[in-house]
Amino acid sequence: MAKVVVGMLGFGTVGTGVIRILDQHSGISLKKVAVRELSKKRALSAPCPITANPSELVDDPEIEIIIEVMGGERPALDLLTAAIEKRKHIVTANKEVLAKHGPELFKLAASKGVAIFCEASVAGGIPLISTIHKGLEANQISSVTGILNGTTNFILSSMEEKGEDFNAALAKAQELGYAEADPTADIEGFDVAYKLSILTALAFGHFANPKDINRKGITSVMPEDFKHARDFGYRIKLLGSTSAAGDAVDVRVRPSLVPILHPLANVSGANNGIVVDGDAVGELMMVGPGAGELPTASAVVGDLINLASALKLPDFASYFQAAIEPGWAKLAPAGDRRSAYYLRIEVHDHPGVIGQIGTIFGDHHLSIRNIVQQGVSYDHASIIIITQDVKEANMEEALAELSKKEFLKTVAACMPIYAAGGKHA
Amino acid sequence: MAKVVVGMLGFGTVGTGVIRILDQHSGISLKKVAVRELSKKRALSAPCPITANPSELVDDPEIEIIIEVMGGERPALDLLTAAIEKRKHIVTANKEVLAKHGPELFKLAASKGVAIFCEASVAGGIPLISTIHKGLEANQISSVTGILNGTTNFILSSMEEKGEDFNAALAKAQELGYAEADPTADIEGFDVAYKLSILTALAFGHFANPKDINRKGITSVMPEDFKHARDFGYRIKLLGSTSAAGDAVDVRVRPSLVPILHPLANVSGANNGIVVDGDAVGELMMVGPGAGELPTASAVVGDLINLASALKLPDFASYFQAAIEPGWAKLAPAGDRRSAYYLRIEVHDHPGVIGQIGTIFGDHHLSIRNIVQQGVSYDHASIIIITQDVKEANMEEALAELSKKEFLKTVAACMPIYAAGGKHA
Repeated sequence: MAKVVVGMLGFGTVGTGVIRILDQHSGISLKKVAVRELSKKRALSAPCPITANPSELVDDPEIEIIIEVMGGERPALDLLTAAIEKRKHIVTANKEVLAKHGPELFKLAASKGVAIFCEASVAGGIPLISTIHKGLEANQISSVTGILNGTTNFILSSMEEKGEDFNAALAKAQELGYAEADPTADIEGFDVAYKLSILTALAFGHFANPKDINRKGITSVMPEDFKHARDFGYRIKLLGSTSAAGDAVDVRVRPSLVPILHPLANVSGANNGIVVDGDAVGELMMVGPGAGELPTASAVVGDLINLASALKLPDFASYFQAAIEPGWAKLAPAGDRRSAYYLRIEVHDHPGVIGQIGTIFGDHHLSIRNIVQQGVSYDHASIIIITQDVKEANMEEALAELSKKEFLKTVAACMPIYAAGGKHA
Repeated sequence: MAKVVVGMLGFGTVGTGVIRILDQHSGISLKKVAVRELSKKRALSAPCPITANPSELVDDPEIEIIIEVMGGERPALDLLTAAIEKRKHIVTANKEVLAKHGPELFKLAASKGVAIFCEASVAGGIPLISTIHKGLEANQISSVTGILNGTTNFILSSMEEKGEDFNAALAKAQELGYAEADPTADIEGFDVAYKLSILTALAFGHFANPKDINRKGITSVMPEDFKHARDFGYRIKLLGSTSAAGDAVDVRVRPSLVPILHPLANVSGANNGIVVDGDAVGELMMVGPGAGELPTASAVVGDLINLASALKLPDFASYFQAAIEPGWAKLAPAGDRRSAYYLRIEVHDHPGVIGQIGTIFGDHHLSIRNIVQQGVSYDHASIIIITQDVKEANMEEALAELSKKEFLKTVAACMPIYAAGGKHA
């Protein structure tokens, strides 16, 4: 069989892994790699010419597949668009460009009869996308929920194990190379939101517009929350979820309490773990490395091999390409979501405070499962509440009313509690 | 698109689930179902004619795909052979017939240009086969290890949680429908061996002959072993594993100790959990329902949809069919395997017994990590040993020598300890 000729945009960590793995696969010929800086020192020398001009790849009629591992929104978007226009198939690890421009890119690809494979864009080495798309073909997916960011999972694991505060754990993660110098995309949940946008497309047929995704990062999680969570039998994890909600989809990123005995609670360090809920299969969970040179490259090269070996099949894109509709997913109003909640409310310790909180919660249809008051100093107490399953809009109204009370210092934590089946309930 | 016409052999639990799920999929037309007893009462009536004569399906030129969910070696083998001879594609959930006759069936299928899809034959609803075959395409697999039998996992979980002995836990599993009236295939590890034979074919290219698989069931696991295992930080699980061992494959079924914090230890009840170790991805774990009507049918119908939608592609079997070679896998000598071990040795409590055991172990190059003696009665003590990583052949020689000693009552337990990376080491 003739070799399939491919070009690669980007030669960072993932690109290096791709070259290492491709070395063992004879059916694919890497013709050229485009980089931003030709002079940059690299761990590996490319087995082919390198150029600083990506058009040399995009315009090369011999190249059938473009591997895009440069990341970021631009210039990736323009290069992918140009490559698809030239009828090249795409293998990409770029979650940001897919999340922000998935509808237009997939529409263009469909019109040109080419495929976009993106296994590496979500959950690194875990073949989550092919599992949803092919492995669970017989299922209606009701939700996909999981730990989708290794950096924040590492930070939360450190905080829990060592009792460190957020800044100390972040600094350590940066020192070890698990977090970027600018950690915003990870710690504020943007990275998870991008991945959820793609998972929403796979599970429900439309990308979710990342700017509309209900998103909360981990910067406000405090060491004492791990202790209280533990006392009630939970760990704290940054969960992303996309769930069917009538004719809409609920997509959210939230630090959440996970029951200690649930396998998601035991996904530690830089791993990812995802629960897919399907109507026939029930709960399926996958755990593995969510990032890293070789795991992510494993997903890129897996796509590449699957794509390369299918190229000779006529109209194969219609078979292999997930059915993704134009336009954005309709997102459910955030307030409709039901869930149990963990709250930590810091108050001036006046007589009757618990009673007033109880009254406010009752007025807003919030049932309390557990409530514990702990004195902190003579005028300061922490009140820890675990609610029953409640509606988020009611919770917000209650907290708004609470915020007017003089006894309130702050609502220091308000996190949903994960329940099996992908529902925060 | 014209509907793909299929026939189904068998209408038990899985067949019922297939009909339920197929009801939601319009591209597939179920023409006829063959059963052993026409008069048997069923949970569901078939949406098509039923016959007691399977030749009506196998000989029907209109039927393109045969779904085989009857199970067992015969008459399944003859029917599958006849169907493949007639150039029908196969979707089967039958681990026993594949494990025992995989080489001949896949060889015949290749010669006739048809595909055999068998996702449902291993790990029920977990899309393990497609993950190994397609999701991890870029990887050299070094091992697949896991909990592959829900019945024994349920029994072991009960024994651990309730302190029950094996017979009580088995009786409860039978009462709840988790175990068959004749539980031999599950509790003696045959079922796991069949699944390992198929996983060996997927991961290493040849089926493992089930009669040569090193197999030990769970009947000799005692309640006190769970307690001792727990004291050292382990749970007991029935693990099946297939691992590369030089130019051979080590395939085995063993009750094993799993570190409590490893996710495999937390696969409870009737679930399955599998760790796949690949050179690029590292450790990937999947957990989900390993049996049951809808989960298993989810895998059958997933195969069916994938196969049906690919039928129009020319020569698609060469793309979709896993590359499985004729003949059986070369199995590594069992004694070569290295592992840490848990032992429980019951002895007449004479002075110097521990010293003699230590000497025998030392003579056979067995390093001991922990040793604990517990008095049981005035003349009876239990000696619990955790070894370092040792060679199984050395362990067997030491136990043979120990068996000649007058102080020995019995070696009540000798179980390998699972270590990450799929190695019992």
